[in-house]
Amino acid sequence: MMEVYLMKSIDIRALFRNSKDYVGKEIVVEGWIRTNRSSKSFGFIELNDGTFFKNLQVVYEENLTDFKKISKLCIATAISVKGTLVETPGAKQPFEIKASEIIVEAESSPEFPLQKKRHTFEYLRTISHLRPRGNTYAAVFRVRSIAAYAIHKFFQERNFVYVNTPIITGSDAEGAGEMFHVTTFDFNNIPKNSDNSIDYTKDFFKKSTNLTVSGQLEGECYALAYKNIYTFGPTFRSENSNTARHAAEFWMIEPEIAFSDLNGYMDLAEEMIKFIIDYVLEHAPEEMEFFNSFIDKGLLDRLNHVASSDFKRITYTEAVELLQKSDKKFEYPIEWGSDLQTEHERYLTEEVFKKPLFVTDYPKDIKAFYMRINDDNKTVAAADLLVPGIGEIIGGSQREERLNVLSERMKDIGLNEDDYWWYMELRKYGGVKHAGYGLGFERMIMYLTGMSNIRDVIPFPRTVGTAEF
Amino acid sequence: MMEVYLMKSIDIRALFRNSKDYVGKEIVVEGWIRTNRSSKSFGFIELNDGTFFKNLQVVYEENLTDFKKISKLCIATAISVKGTLVETPGAKQPFEIKASEIIVEAESSPEFPLQKKRHTFEYLRTISHLRPRGNTYAAVFRVRSIAAYAIHKFFQERNFVYVNTPIITGSDAEGAGEMFHVTTFDFNNIPKNSDNSIDYTKDFFKKSTNLTVSGQLEGECYALAYKNIYTFGPTFRSENSNTARHAAEFWMIEPEIAFSDLNGYMDLAEEMIKFIIDYVLEHAPEEMEFFNSFIDKGLLDRLNHVASSDFKRITYTEAVELLQKSDKKFEYPIEWGSDLQTEHERYLTEEVFKKPLFVTDYPKDIKAFYMRINDDNKTVAAADLLVPGIGEIIGGSQREERLNVLSERMKDIGLNEDDYWWYMELRKYGGVKHAGYGLGFERMIMYLTGMSNIRDVIPFPRTVGTAEF
Repeated sequence: MMEVYLMKSIDIRALFRNSKDYVGKEIVVEGWIRTNRSSKSFGFIELNDGTFFKNLQVVYEENLTDFKKISKLCIATAISVKGTLVETPGAKQPFEIKASEIIVEAESSPEFPLQKKRHTFEYLRTISHLRPRGNTYAAVFRVRSIAAYAIHKFFQERNFVYVNTPIITGSDAEGAGEMFHVTTFDFNNIPKNSDNSIDYTKDFFKKSTNLTVSGQLEGECYALAYKNIYTFGPTFRSENSNTARHAAEFWMIEPEIAFSDLNGYMDLAEEMIKFIIDYVLEHAPEEMEFFNSFIDKGLLDRLNHVASSDFKRITYTEAVELLQKSDKKFEYPIEWGSDLQTEHERYLTEEVFKKPLFVTDYPKDIKAFYMRINDDNKTVAAADLLVPGIGEIIGGSQREERLNVLSERMKDIGLNEDDYWWYMELRKYGGVKHAGYGLGFERMIMYLTGMSNIRDVIPFPRTVGTAEF
Repeated sequence: MMEVYLMKSIDIRALFRNSKDYVGKEIVVEGWIRTNRSSKSFGFIELNDGTFFKNLQVVYEENLTDFKKISKLCIATAISVKGTLVETPGAKQPFEIKASEIIVEAESSPEFPLQKKRHTFEYLRTISHLRPRGNTYAAVFRVRSIAAYAIHKFFQERNFVYVNTPIITGSDAEGAGEMFHVTTFDFNNIPKNSDNSIDYTKDFFKKSTNLTVSGQLEGECYALAYKNIYTFGPTFRSENSNTARHAAEFWMIEPEIAFSDLNGYMDLAEEMIKFIIDYVLEHAPEEMEFFNSFIDKGLLDRLNHVASSDFKRITYTEAVELLQKSDKKFEYPIEWGSDLQTEHERYLTEEVFKKPLFVTDYPKDIKAFYMRINDDNKTVAAADLLVPGIGEIIGGSQREERLNVLSERMKDIGLNEDDYWWYMELRKYGGVKHAGYGLGFERMIMYLTGMSNIRDVIPFPRTVGTAEF
């Protein structure tokens, strides 16, 4: 009995990736039962140890100690299995393990909610602590992990410096935005000044603070030191919108590159998107096959197409003309000066160009204060990347590096320069041209997996009215 | 003139790493002036482009267009330089660029605060937007970036799944802790129930929420799905302590491994620490040399020693005996049952064992509710890693997987099981033995760099009373 514990267990991933090393040998595996069916004289367990998407088939026979007990083990029971790995030519699975010993490591119960029958995604969200044990979420969250690493790898290999910009902030990066307050105030006893205004000097940071909506402004400080930087961290919006694409807490990647104009950003973003797709396809082939079969039939074709396309670039003005010329009936009619809606974006990328598309040079009035004003004084050097199947996936711009122009623009839209003293100061000391963009990480994961609700690509999603677990 | 812009600029890093590829060739570099000194007929610029710790020396002579103007350029001016890279045998620097053309990309001013004279770290914190342009912080934040990547690489290569546990949480992971509230309440008008209690149903999440102090409990859910997982994200403490080692916002790495006991955690943590040190020494040699020369003389010896030592393991009970037997006068006398203070930890690791040390099996009363109770019913399967020069750097434990024992313990210390229903439920369905630990990322960076104040290893630190930028 003790021998099982003395032999080091093998990850099921290793068996699938290097089966030749193990076939014919006695090994130990550990994992959780996904299914268990048996007849009088033998049984099969589908065992998953979390290291690999697929299950290992365990065969056990009546000569096994505790055969009866083993044959009744519930789904999710943790067991260790000693046995011999044998090839199974002609069968669905390439090999199986013939058990000589099975030990229960931790019991389960028939109440375990992830039984074989299919559950709705809505139900599974109510058991977010258990859902990664089922196929769909096991695949989603491994892809999320691999994609996160692909992003770090992409930037680190190119010598970008990873910067952890602050989560708690006294400034509002987008000059707008619905933010969460961060405070240590006792809500029963909010400190007030004599004029009845809130006395923030009594709060933890001695000022009013919020959760960040973007690390961009702080990222710019670092781009002007290291040339190329990126952030990758959580951001927050307290928007009261209950849609499949919005969460209150989500992760963003925000690269910022100095000595670069808008084209530098677009080149980098295109290279990054292709890198992520290639990396995930290579490192999670079983998961991606699953999504393509069960979640989104055209997924692999679409991703392979994107990874091998040259992304198209057109101006906003050209985009508006194309939309106006089109026969397509849009819910929102488009005219120069109004923002593109998802229906417009998807029409352009899916029907007109049939590939990813940067739309550049938007009207300044619909874009943020920090975007560089073009010579026409009507548009800014901004670009959004639109992709088939989803619409906008990246937004970015060249930043306004001219202090006087920036200052003028802030006055125009009523921002107080004093609140941005350090951001302005960057423009005084070698504030060279620079550009950057933001990729919503969850939107990228939705794109990679075909999952259509953002709640299904975040381990424990936070949305309006929901902060469980 | 235009040609400069048409030639692609070369990163200064590439010149230093592969100088043979460039010597004798005409190249373009871009960067910021660190120093500029000139005589009547020639001048030298130390140019830094952020891609490399060291500067490139630029030589310019009076035949240059705008020689006078160039010779007056201020520190931090952004320039592009066309010229030929030539070796400089016998000189301090291995090569320099002889400029044939210098173009100002963005001006600076004599007011730029990072002039050659040394500034205090305290002063530099007040200009956190500019400080990464000086040597010390340029080195610190590149090492921070490289160490972050080393951590991802270490876990990803071992097939650990990266999990983004929630930042906004309704639960308190440590069963104690001083937390920040997250809210969208208008502080002038806090909604109340008829009994005058706070009406949280009117808040964004319809409940009281805080910033996370740890992702461990949620991490456990994922370890019981994927076997091996890690988190790496921001965590928060609203502790009112103004020390060199505490920040209100800091990043943590929290691996969690299933089918593992306390030894599995210690093996993994030891391997990880060594991996991070080796990786940083290999990938930031210039920065580490700088720290060793200017910040902390014994740094490289200490790190190399740690990377090549077998970490020692002793029990808390043994540690207490060693401390009691010692001749050393401690500020806090030690007796069995009280927590080790930093002075005790440093004595053990620096003077007794002279290497990293795991202290295991602490009294249960000084440790958290989720730690597994040992058979003696007095201690828990917890272990802290102590390292020379700093004391505790990692804390971890095997987790209590026995539902009845966990439940009993929670009752004892007054925790409400209902608040943890999902955490309890993990123990019902294949809740196999598992262990995990937390590494404070900033503490690791302090250890790697020799920097002694946590405010100096966080780009924009948040501490009590301070949330600038």
